[in-house]
Amino acid sequence: MASLDFGPLFAPGLPPPAAKWTGFAKYNFIGGHNDAEQLPLAALIKAANDVLTREARNLATYGLASGPLGYRPLREFLVQKLERTAGIRCDADEILITSGSLQALDLVNGILLKRGDTVIIEQATYQGALTRLQRLGVEAVGIPLDGEGMRMDALAAALDALRRRGVQAKYIYTIPTVQNPTGTILSEARRHEMLRLAAQCGVPIFEDDCYSDLIWDGKRPPALYAMSTHGGVIHIGSFSKSVAPALRVGYIVAPWPLLARMLPLKTDAGSGALEQMVLGEFCSAQFDAHVPVLTRALRAKLETLMAALDEQFGTAAEFEDPKGGIFLWVKLPDQVDTQKLFAPALAAGVAINPGAEWSTDKSHGRSRTRLCFANPSPEVIRAGIATLAEVCRREFGVPARIANVERARV
Amino acid sequence: MASLDFGPLFAPGLPPPAAKWTGFAKYNFIGGHNDAEQLPLAALIKAANDVLTREARNLATYGLASGPLGYRPLREFLVQKLERTAGIRCDADEILITSGSLQALDLVNGILLKRGDTVIIEQATYQGALTRLQRLGVEAVGIPLDGEGMRMDALAAALDALRRRGVQAKYIYTIPTVQNPTGTILSEARRHEMLRLAAQCGVPIFEDDCYSDLIWDGKRPPALYAMSTHGGVIHIGSFSKSVAPALRVGYIVAPWPLLARMLPLKTDAGSGALEQMVLGEFCSAQFDAHVPVLTRALRAKLETLMAALDEQFGTAAEFEDPKGGIFLWVKLPDQVDTQKLFAPALAAGVAINPGAEWSTDKSHGRSRTRLCFANPSPEVIRAGIATLAEVCRREFGVPARIANVERARV
Repeated sequence: MASLDFGPLFAPGLPPPAAKWTGFAKYNFIGGHNDAEQLPLAALIKAANDVLTREARNLATYGLASGPLGYRPLREFLVQKLERTAGIRCDADEILITSGSLQALDLVNGILLKRGDTVIIEQATYQGALTRLQRLGVEAVGIPLDGEGMRMDALAAALDALRRRGVQAKYIYTIPTVQNPTGTILSEARRHEMLRLAAQCGVPIFEDDCYSDLIWDGKRPPALYAMSTHGGVIHIGSFSKSVAPALRVGYIVAPWPLLARMLPLKTDAGSGALEQMVLGEFCSAQFDAHVPVLTRALRAKLETLMAALDEQFGTAAEFEDPKGGIFLWVKLPDQVDTQKLFAPALAAGVAINPGAEWSTDKSHGRSRTRLCFANPSPEVIRAGIATLAEVCRREFGVPARIANVERARV
Repeated sequence: MASLDFGPLFAPGLPPPAAKWTGFAKYNFIGGHNDAEQLPLAALIKAANDVLTREARNLATYGLASGPLGYRPLREFLVQKLERTAGIRCDADEILITSGSLQALDLVNGILLKRGDTVIIEQATYQGALTRLQRLGVEAVGIPLDGEGMRMDALAAALDALRRRGVQAKYIYTIPTVQNPTGTILSEARRHEMLRLAAQCGVPIFEDDCYSDLIWDGKRPPALYAMSTHGGVIHIGSFSKSVAPALRVGYIVAPWPLLARMLPLKTDAGSGALEQMVLGEFCSAQFDAHVPVLTRALRAKLETLMAALDEQFGTAAEFEDPKGGIFLWVKLPDQVDTQKLFAPALAAGVAINPGAEWSTDKSHGRSRTRLCFANPSPEVIRAGIATLAEVCRREFGVPARIANVERARV
């Protein structure tokens, strides 16, 4: 019998099929992976042992003994952690644990967005946020950034333009604290201004604070959620960057009436219990000690990356020293199209994020690239950037000269 | 400043808001929880220790070192387990690990369904499948079941009726092996017939085998996926019933070209790594020894439940002894409306699933209820059924007399 042809049965508008996974690139500057050397292995293993020995019988019930908002000890850790670091005062019933911050994005989008809606977003921003909006048929109005984050003059102008068009933006999505990909931190003055503009227009702010734990000097302004006096902020965060990306645990902070609308859309019978239990146990005892160890290591890798770029690209690679995080946003000369650089770089073993995929304005992103530095070793960073420079010179004539350096073998 | 009013900003058609969780009912016969006494605690803790000690550095990368299909050792366990128990021959690239079988439902629906589509489904079936179809705006044509599962004469008639209307059904969703809620096992002869009818009409079969490990005598027919000669079957399964529900790990078995369409819809950056790692480690060594221990305990609880129903309801409660699983599908006299029984029962501490929520045909489900027996202790089962009988008699006059038994204190 002939095989069933699924072709005519597929839903319309599906994304193109995935290619088979063939492993990570040799020089891997994409994907938000973290530094394997800094994983707190012994503490995680002890946490797993302790919490399973004490509470594993709860695994027999969906949602453990904590209900659909997620493992209560983890929410209780977050209550005190968010107050201490971000100035957020909330209680455990205003936190929903999610399967990574990506599920948090889906749930917030789920309660607010329909096809044809408009949202405001940073001009350079997280690709996963942009692709979600595209799939949902939502228009993303991009606001330019400078060294202090989203520009408030541009935000005011965009809100004004929408008002004139009679369009109600559904939210302002911002990564104010270690912005992805620019690494900027929105100043406290701008936070006040954003809150004022948002309140004036009745637009909620969707604050994505995923990277905010990874700041070199540990200093950050209060969260927009904490500063708001009119309640119109939804805050999300994650343990992917501060502990381990493969643990898929994020969270949403919002008033209960909003979480009550999200819960019926969270039809997964709960997020993974082991991850929540181990994180709850680990974080209560170890989070504060772990984070500075991690950020010191990340800062050292960033310096390796910036030095390698200086050495290999010279003035052809422009960037600002970010205040934290795991990525560097690099501007190459205008003749370089990083989407066209992608394939030959990958063929040479170097994976990069083309800037256009991280921008609402493709021409703004065209000659930019995001380089993640947390996962590769210093040797891999140096050799990878040298290889990237070779490929870029071959394809686009920049950098004009290749540095005469000894290549590390990796 | 006044609080922002989110009301006008919500997407249209949201489900009603969730109520705050107030804990499980005292006599809890809902939710698919498992038997806490049978959790293989020591083996799970050892598995966590062993796998984390050996491989925890992989937690620093999304998807571990296995790519987006999921943790490779777990997929390799499934390759041999599925061949041994269900006769399925596949390789590790034809298995996608999901965040519970609910994500598997979402991904299969995601590639095949659009608003206005039609699917075929068992008349009494899993509520989560029904509510998903409803949210998607998909018509579910229900096929009656008898003691051998879905009735093939009714399936043939339904396919014929659809053909006459010019409607192409997108799939036949079936739980053939320990059906939810009826506990039936589709006979091998009917499996052949279902495959023949499906192939004839070019309709895929969506086989949900979530409960198939929990069979009292361990004997099962081959999976439809294994028996198909034309490839048009998508198979899903779960570890929620065989190991622990709070571990959110399920899987999809399908030819790679179908998984390649699902992967771009799985935008969660991977399912939880710890759950996959611990299950991969545990199952390879312990799964085969664990399952019969669990099913013996479940069988004993089922017998407790059936005896309690006989004692408390007499002939007013009709049911067939299921061949496996964690639930009993009970028919009460026609005057009982289990949706109206729900609230007074809950007020007395007894949580039940009203049959209408588990049926395509609300009148068929009206006087039926699904009772899950895996989680409550024998004492709770007996006291809960006694309380349910009291409430049912008060509300609907059945059973006519209440058994004069000593109530266990719980």
